[in-house]
Amino acid sequence: MSALLAAASRRAVLIATAESCTGGLIAGRITDEAGSSAIFDRGFVTYSNAAKTAMLGVRAETLEAHGAVSEAVAREMAGGALERSDAAVAVSVTGIAGPGGSEHKPEGRVCFGLATAAGTICETVEFGPLGRAAVRGRTVDHALAMVLRAVEAMPLP
Amino acid sequence: MSALLAAASRRAVLIATAESCTGGLIAGRITDEAGSSAIFDRGFVTYSNAAKTAMLGVRAETLEAHGAVSEAVAREMAGGALERSDAAVAVSVTGIAGPGGSEHKPEGRVCFGLATAAGTICETVEFGPLGRAAVRGRTVDHALAMVLRAVEAMPLP
Repeated sequence: MSALLAAASRRAVLIATAESCTGGLIAGRITDEAGSSAIFDRGFVTYSNAAKTAMLGVRAETLEAHGAVSEAVAREMAGGALERSDAAVAVSVTGIAGPGGSEHKPEGRVCFGLATAAGTICETVEFGPLGRAAVRGRTVDHALAMVLRAVEAMPLP
Repeated sequence: MSALLAAASRRAVLIATAESCTGGLIAGRITDEAGSSAIFDRGFVTYSNAAKTAMLGVRAETLEAHGAVSEAVAREMAGGALERSDAAVAVSVTGIAGPGGSEHKPEGRVCFGLATAAGTICETVEFGPLGRAAVRGRTVDHALAMVLRAVEAMPLP
């Protein structure tokens, strides 16, 4: 059993995901394991901006002011997933898996959000131009580490 | 470029996914490829029954009468994803990836739905007790083949 499945099961904590650049792979990884239905509630794969707004309530103004790859959008994605699910922990990712990028938003930049009842934290990681598959893989790992940390900080029953 | 990315781009067709047992892996596979934002709109990872109802409008009566792993539920999942997205093709899967199952719902059974403006078709495939990862992998392959067939049947511009 993974550390996440053990920690979340023990606390009866449900998890939700809100994914852009990983396109469902975080949810896919959590549910790789038998028994994951005890800890995984639902996932929002909001690849288009329209999906971010409709499924998670990300504001059009936030997308316009900051761009989809921003901590402001990651924050609203995680908050929206928490609010629109039965989960106690929601994680979000939005980034540039590549290939490609721009001067201001380089390939390999990923913004993360982590929402619980205590609030939402955000982080940006520059994975660099590792290639699409590697950036997505590292993004999944990083998101799951954030979720595990948040779950382990929750009280045991 | 994959056959699906080529066929859907050429027709300007967007795709949506509604996944239970694959937990996001169909969306993850579609978005493996750079340029997939031209064909992928959003994905619903409805692992819990509550998520199937809230995110896709699957009726509680359908879940109760047929169980989550049924063509009736796959049909409502695909129809709900089509309706609640900007996609022209929506695919759904609900199955028993295993390990485990029952006399009536064996391990490896997966029900698929495929919704377009022309209507919704359903299929059930018995992959057998291949193990969780293999059942999920075969389910992704089968779902993508259904989507490709549906896209290729659509008129070229």
